[in-house]
Amino acid sequence: MGTYQDATGSSGHQPDWDTLRLVAKTVRVLAAEAVQKANSGHPGLPLGAAEIGVLLFAELLRHDPTAPDWPDRDRFVLSAGHGSMLLYALLHLSGYDLPMSELERFRQLGSRTPGHPEYGRTVGVETTTGPLGQGIGNAVGMAIAERMLAARYNRPGYPVVGHWTYVLAGDGDMMEGVSSEAASLAGHWGLGRLIVIYDSNRISIEGQTDLAFTESVATRFQAYGWTVTEVDGHDLSALYQALTAARDSAADQPHLIIAHTHIGRFSDQQDSAEAHGAPLGEESVRRLKQTLGWPEQAFYVPPAVYTFFAEKRCGWQEQRQAWESRFAEWQAAYPDLADQWQQAHQLSLPAGWEQAVPHFDPATKEATRNASGKVLQALAQQIPYLVGGSADLAPSTKTYLENAGDVEKGHYEGRNFHFGVREHAMGAILNGIALHKGLRPFGSTFLVFSDYMRPSIRLAALMRLPVIYVFTHDSIAVGEDGPTHQPVEQTESLRLIPGLTVFRPADAEETRQAWIEAIKMTEGPVALILTRQSLPTLSVPPEVLAAGVSRGGYLLTEITGAGAAQISSEPGSLTDSTTSHPLVPPALSSQITFVASGSEVSLALAAARLLAAEGNSCRVVSVPCRERFLQQPLAYQRAVLDGVDGAEPAAPGTRQHLASNRRRVFLEAGVASGWLQLARPGDQVVAMQTFGESGPASDVARHFGFSPEQVAEKIRSGRDRLPES
Amino acid sequence: MGTYQDATGSSGHQPDWDTLRLVAKTVRVLAAEAVQKANSGHPGLPLGAAEIGVLLFAELLRHDPTAPDWPDRDRFVLSAGHGSMLLYALLHLSGYDLPMSELERFRQLGSRTPGHPEYGRTVGVETTTGPLGQGIGNAVGMAIAERMLAARYNRPGYPVVGHWTYVLAGDGDMMEGVSSEAASLAGHWGLGRLIVIYDSNRISIEGQTDLAFTESVATRFQAYGWTVTEVDGHDLSALYQALTAARDSAADQPHLIIAHTHIGRFSDQQDSAEAHGAPLGEESVRRLKQTLGWPEQAFYVPPAVYTFFAEKRCGWQEQRQAWESRFAEWQAAYPDLADQWQQAHQLSLPAGWEQAVPHFDPATKEATRNASGKVLQALAQQIPYLVGGSADLAPSTKTYLENAGDVEKGHYEGRNFHFGVREHAMGAILNGIALHKGLRPFGSTFLVFSDYMRPSIRLAALMRLPVIYVFTHDSIAVGEDGPTHQPVEQTESLRLIPGLTVFRPADAEETRQAWIEAIKMTEGPVALILTRQSLPTLSVPPEVLAAGVSRGGYLLTEITGAGAAQISSEPGSLTDSTTSHPLVPPALSSQITFVASGSEVSLALAAARLLAAEGNSCRVVSVPCRERFLQQPLAYQRAVLDGVDGAEPAAPGTRQHLASNRRRVFLEAGVASGWLQLARPGDQVVAMQTFGESGPASDVARHFGFSPEQVAEKIRSGRDRLPES
Repeated sequence: MGTYQDATGSSGHQPDWDTLRLVAKTVRVLAAEAVQKANSGHPGLPLGAAEIGVLLFAELLRHDPTAPDWPDRDRFVLSAGHGSMLLYALLHLSGYDLPMSELERFRQLGSRTPGHPEYGRTVGVETTTGPLGQGIGNAVGMAIAERMLAARYNRPGYPVVGHWTYVLAGDGDMMEGVSSEAASLAGHWGLGRLIVIYDSNRISIEGQTDLAFTESVATRFQAYGWTVTEVDGHDLSALYQALTAARDSAADQPHLIIAHTHIGRFSDQQDSAEAHGAPLGEESVRRLKQTLGWPEQAFYVPPAVYTFFAEKRCGWQEQRQAWESRFAEWQAAYPDLADQWQQAHQLSLPAGWEQAVPHFDPATKEATRNASGKVLQALAQQIPYLVGGSADLAPSTKTYLENAGDVEKGHYEGRNFHFGVREHAMGAILNGIALHKGLRPFGSTFLVFSDYMRPSIRLAALMRLPVIYVFTHDSIAVGEDGPTHQPVEQTESLRLIPGLTVFRPADAEETRQAWIEAIKMTEGPVALILTRQSLPTLSVPPEVLAAGVSRGGYLLTEITGAGAAQISSEPGSLTDSTTSHPLVPPALSSQITFVASGSEVSLALAAARLLAAEGNSCRVVSVPCRERFLQQPLAYQRAVLDGVDGAEPAAPGTRQHLASNRRRVFLEAGVASGWLQLARPGDQVVAMQTFGESGPASDVARHFGFSPEQVAEKIRSGRDRLPES
Repeated sequence: MGTYQDATGSSGHQPDWDTLRLVAKTVRVLAAEAVQKANSGHPGLPLGAAEIGVLLFAELLRHDPTAPDWPDRDRFVLSAGHGSMLLYALLHLSGYDLPMSELERFRQLGSRTPGHPEYGRTVGVETTTGPLGQGIGNAVGMAIAERMLAARYNRPGYPVVGHWTYVLAGDGDMMEGVSSEAASLAGHWGLGRLIVIYDSNRISIEGQTDLAFTESVATRFQAYGWTVTEVDGHDLSALYQALTAARDSAADQPHLIIAHTHIGRFSDQQDSAEAHGAPLGEESVRRLKQTLGWPEQAFYVPPAVYTFFAEKRCGWQEQRQAWESRFAEWQAAYPDLADQWQQAHQLSLPAGWEQAVPHFDPATKEATRNASGKVLQALAQQIPYLVGGSADLAPSTKTYLENAGDVEKGHYEGRNFHFGVREHAMGAILNGIALHKGLRPFGSTFLVFSDYMRPSIRLAALMRLPVIYVFTHDSIAVGEDGPTHQPVEQTESLRLIPGLTVFRPADAEETRQAWIEAIKMTEGPVALILTRQSLPTLSVPPEVLAAGVSRGGYLLTEITGAGAAQISSEPGSLTDSTTSHPLVPPALSSQITFVASGSEVSLALAAARLLAAEGNSCRVVSVPCRERFLQQPLAYQRAVLDGVDGAEPAAPGTRQHLASNRRRVFLEAGVASGWLQLARPGDQVVAMQTFGESGPASDVARHFGFSPEQVAEKIRSGRDRLPES
């Protein structure tokens, strides 16, 4: 494999220290001014870490502000996202598309300079940060993605992948557990191209970090297998040495550079907690400018600074162009690999991929986690860039990709991650992999432990990242493991996250289709909520099912009293749900629409059969994705739920008349408050109100009233119907 | 201060090794048999950690199974909760009220031997574990509580507090970030009486821990300031030495004992991942018994084992009685302290405490976080056992107790914790403090970061612990910090957790009352959701407000079209909501009931004034605690929401008739799906559908339609009304 040449690292290069110092001053003043103008923000970090930022953007980063999507650019993550003005100032100065007018609109509505860096809003921002610790996890994801792409695509003489990932992190990042988990994995994976600069200023919001944080961070990171250097964070030369040494190290250890800095450096609030998160004040900003010998002019940038970066850009562009030439040669030499690269970076799918996913025999029973496992194996064969892993639960979540190898230190061609019992780092790392591009990541754990990684899921949703979560063991049917392992509120709480698509498929075939929908979505995260226990495979015509899952909900079947006797309780004997659904004659005693997702769909079906046998008319609606169903036109929702078709409300009096004998019954072995979005007066909810219990699944289900007989009885009794008015 | 004498630690004591070995065998067989009988469970840990467990229960723990509530007993936490059968076997053998019949019902519904240990269900179980890492955090909470009680209550010659806290943890516990955070704090606080035994068996569910976990745990814990010992976990003598050395160490460092063990020890699945979480199989259990020279009889315990523990119990009882004598003497010598102890352990409240909490002037504006801060200061003066802290946000969450000192290494008399940026450990530690008893803990952070600690909140709810969370910065009104810091789905997601009481008060006075309600609740956690921004203090008669907050919701005011002109928009000018509320005459164009919580209540009021001026009749209902409001009788809910009083639905046709001009409007600057539980066809929801935006709060509010004018206009237009049928 060829050596990856890096111009900025060429020996003998001597930075222009004077200009760098000038840039650092510029950054300090811009940050202080922008925060002051917004009357909101965090001046402490930009003032304290100006030298670090300047060295990174001017000397270390191999990037090209005119081509911010260059796939092999170095990545920079400001994990301490509250220091956003440092990043914005550097993006502006180094030539990214971020004009000074945007810096002047720092923290204003609609600006490209929001309070914390937001991916997708500002060119050059590699990830959304602010919630502490996440950026370090993202960077580990980016760094492992780089190694994985290098293993896949580099060929002798054609090192098309080989960038570094830099992080600037603060005390808070070091304290958060998610960064501990991620740092342990980075050491384990031997990510030598990951360089974290820890801006150690010994101040956090409550005061001196000594109040809460006296551990040896250096020793801790050494324990993770990192190299650790300590350096004066204001000494440009020492910093440069530490950074280049870390970058040029051939070792397979990630690097922590502990940079001792002074928060709010050069301001009259230096070394104080006050400098962290509040504007310095007009007078202090004035004094800062005096101290730095700065003109009074607002948002002033010395021409020499712009000139300096203009020259830098020439070098950067040359580097990028050199890479592009090399890449073009590589494309010519390895057209198949190049195709694979393109597909992976665009998340495009090979012809026939969908057909290659197996269907399931309606005569069988299958846990949806098992079905998911089988689907995933087929998908993985079709989609070579699909990679993923589990937080030590792959045998249970069925997410291990067969014959695909493991991601291991020194061996990055594999596709299976072993995240260990580290759900939160898994979430942050999946985000980093998705942000990096070139791979499509999934991660799995038990649904109840989605709580451990919730902050990362939220960020995936906020960033619209195409991450897939496989959450299994999705209800009290977990059984013996008891309430600590039985999710009750998790499905609903995931449904609350804006932009997260939650699928809870009812059987193996819906699981297949949910995976297909997830794969098709190239924006925004998807959670697949799957059962531990076996479920009957329902017999639904494939087109009905595909359309129904895609729209989030559909009529699975209707069972009328008259026909009930002919309907066997065996799976696969459903009536054809593609036929039209006339209003059931009023002679029937009740018209019941069961609305459910996941395992409760077959429960609804069983209860419906019992009730139909008594002369009631029952519809069973499967809603694998409630968010999508709620987005459908009302006419569709009504047609599915009530069989009435038409966007118009029923004639006055009609609804009222029907209310007493028509109802929707929402069935969920979990907290069901969100289902009430589809409810009307007189409807009924069968759900969990409490945590679960330890016991065999069927005993637990009965204990909480989730047997077909109990559900049917609850409907007969009308217990817990919603008030009629 | 007198030396705390410990009989088990008396020098020269030599354990009865032969019997201990026999006990270990007994534990192994009982665990394997119980798991086998349940056909579910985790035999690996009990077989691998039998020696550790036996030594702890027989030789180390200063406990008395006949007095499990002895306040100064040593605490034992099985952080690796999946190894529950180890704990159950030891509880049974050492004489806790856990008969063999319960072991035979392992993992059966309603047994006292659920899949994972559950606090409150099984005597001797100190905390609910299973979700990994939490137990270590709980133990840190117990250990700091012990130091704090010692500082408060011990007097020269009367060391009434002085126990140890032991933890048995597994690989997963060590990998989870929450334990990293907690361990860092334990080192920081110098918790020398905390002893964690790490059952290092190098196997986790996916296989060898080497797959994911190659860091040096020893070095990492040294970095946290712990002492670390490594020992053969099957060598009783070496283990005993390590344990007693840690216990008898006078140092102020917590202790990690890394016990190298073999998972599934003595079974034919020793050292395999299979042994972790599945029954061994009948044949393997048979072979295990053969290997150990055990009789075929099921659930057999050698008489010598029972005898051994019977003798132990005599010693334990003597110890406990000696403590009780000392405690009685101390009570006599320090009656005031003794009173304080009683109050703290019973969470009882001094006379007049409620009256001592300040009221707020209705002419002022106040952020509810500020009101909370003032209330908290008053409460802290009344309730000396109230302690708490923040995850590095006390200046923002207003939770620092003035003149109450900090909890610091070597100085435990303080009442303020500095948890650092470690929300998750904060949550787990608060649980541990509550479990310990003798202190009432609260913790605070920004609402959006409640996600970081959600697993601990869930466990507090499951255990019914009286923990109070103060979550501030509760909506998009956070403003400039942007979407990463603006909660949108958090309030609703907290409302989903069974048994967590969520208060979102509308103003300073409701905040006062919510705190009072929280303090009165001695079971179950409470979350207070508070604003960053100022809100008008509403003028509500104190009795109305107190009753209303207690019931979760109440009519704040009604503004009729006729009277609208007389209603000033100044706070404090509300009509008296205690007067009766006749149905508004049908001449009015619309009858609107605003239903809101928190900051949206004053928004509703402002919008109501606009609409009332146009001749509409508006009611404004404040629902600070939706869970409680939903638990009220329907008649109360209806009286509050619609002003109709009566449990009966309106006459047929009436509701239908009214639907077009009567509606409830739910206003929430967050995800509002849960409010639909109170909705009827034709009602309207004004809520967030997306994440927030960075910008000044008022700009952001307007951007999302949360100004009074926009809300009024939305109601006029009828946009987004729920379908009429």
